[in-house]
Amino acid sequence: MDASALQQAIPAIFAPWIAAMDFEVIDAAKGSVTLRMPVKPAYVHVGGVMCGQAAMAAADTAMVLAMMTELGEFRPMTTVQLQTSFLRPIGGDHCTVIAKVLRSGKSLAFGSIDIVSADNKLAVQATTTYALL
Amino acid sequence: MDASALQQAIPAIFAPWIAAMDFEVIDAAKGSVTLRMPVKPAYVHVGGVMCGQAAMAAADTAMVLAMMTELGEFRPMTTVQLQTSFLRPIGGDHCTVIAKVLRSGKSLAFGSIDIVSADNKLAVQATTTYALL
Amino acid sequence: MDASALQQAIPAIFAPWIAAMDFEVIDAAKGSVTLRMPVKPAYVHVGGVMCGQAAMAAADTAMVLAMMTELGEFRPMTTVQLQTSFLRPIGGDHCTVIAKVLRSGKSLAFGSIDIVSADNKLAVQATTTYALL
Amino acid sequence: MDASALQQAIPAIFAPWIAAMDFEVIDAAKGSVTLRMPVKPAYVHVGGVMCGQAAMAAADTAMVLAMMTELGEFRPMTTVQLQTSFLRPIGGDHCTVIAKVLRSGKSLAFGSIDIVSADNKLAVQATTTYALL
Repeated sequence: MDASALQQAIPAIFAPWIAAMDFEVIDAAKGSVTLRMPVKPAYVHVGGVMCGQAAMAAADTAMVLAMMTELGEFRPMTTVQLQTSFLRPIGGDHCTVIAKVLRSGKSLAFGSIDIVSADNKLAVQATTTYALL
Repeated sequence: MDASALQQAIPAIFAPWIAAMDFEVIDAAKGSVTLRMPVKPAYVHVGGVMCGQAAMAAADTAMVLAMMTELGEFRPMTTVQLQTSFLRPIGGDHCTVIAKVLRSGKSLAFGSIDIVSADNKLAVQATTTYALL
Repeated sequence: MDASALQQAIPAIFAPWIAAMDFEVIDAAKGSVTLRMPVKPAYVHVGGVMCGQAAMAAADTAMVLAMMTELGEFRPMTTVQLQTSFLRPIGGDHCTVIAKVLRSGKSLAFGSIDIVSADNKLAVQATTTYALL
Repeated sequence: MDASALQQAIPAIFAPWIAAMDFEVIDAAKGSVTLRMPVKPAYVHVGGVMCGQAAMAAADTAMVLAMMTELGEFRPMTTVQLQTSFLRPIGGDHCTVIAKVLRSGKSLAFGSIDIVSADNKLAVQATTTYALL
């Protein structure tokens, strides 16, 4: 599945609340995907930076797309756990979300997601386990 | 800070995207808070249940409110990490989010968040670390 | 499986390195187990408190035993992930490890482990996912 | 601090139980360290592979050493949280532990640890937060 196929799949697979985040799939290969995420004013909290909730939403979304590139199709799956570390605040008007499948087994898959700020610093790092249904 | 004070603080503190989730603070005591979370159709993905992204957003939001009850006021803080486990799917039209401060130190605080589905089952369990700025 | 049966199972199931930690099973019920853990001098690092590595080893060990009470027997299983938060240092000569199964499904199980210091404070909190093989 | 200085520091800093694991520092640079870990028979559980407790102990130990290369010295620090994912079993007689500092701030540091099995596969992946005291 290439970037264009993933982009088209977003509104069909994800909740409308997530589809409305307007992620742009800018790169995809087997087991990895890169998204451009607009930092909309609606995501910015009182501290003047993107809220952590938006970062976690991006991480989980990117990992589903990375799994689709790994599997060659969308298959029903569920997030088992997702751990996110917040290294630096995200200012600016966009950030980049890079998801990689670390291992894809028969029933479980593991991934890692980096969110890089517009000034090119690692801002958020997440790891996750998915179950294939 | 009581439930009513926390409710009023939501639009001032959180990103508009989070304030629009319409959490209702139904209980608050020192170090703990309970939210009623409407499961809006916009949060439901292709699998017919609430997306994990909405659950993680709820967990982080509830923890900030629990910290406010602990501290007696809003103080600038940042999520250091948040780990979420997804035990069961969340169907139905609402769920309940219960956040507890496990420890609040000078610079770091630790918390635990349970999300209970409308049929009263533990569906999501999260643990988190916050840094006070 | 009661406390005595679990105690006897420890050397058969766990690595010798873990069996040598001399956990004492002091309570067991379906889905939960309580261990007394001696804080041996060998576990104490330069800071004068129990090393985090020993705490993580205790958490994982206690969860396997809790799963055995849940299942009524030992079944092959593997830790998928384990997240540990370190809330307070552990001094003193022992601590108490309490593991609870939060959910046990067909292929995945979720648990929570608390480690309480000798002066009765929550010192370590862990959550974990196991896969049944 | 080079590999030799780190090697010499191990018995002074870590608990004797950890020093006895005989990690060998095979590479070190600013912000990263690589350890050779012998998979001793004492670490092997009933399933015939290295127990997860030994892997978590290795991850935490390697991160402390990586922080020392980052800071140029040993400074008192404490693990805030450590999340470990177990991707594949570790057989064979040794494995390799690679720790990297992702960010080192004034009071908090973040790191990532990979454990690679003797047949060169990513077997364990951990992320961690440390507090500098």
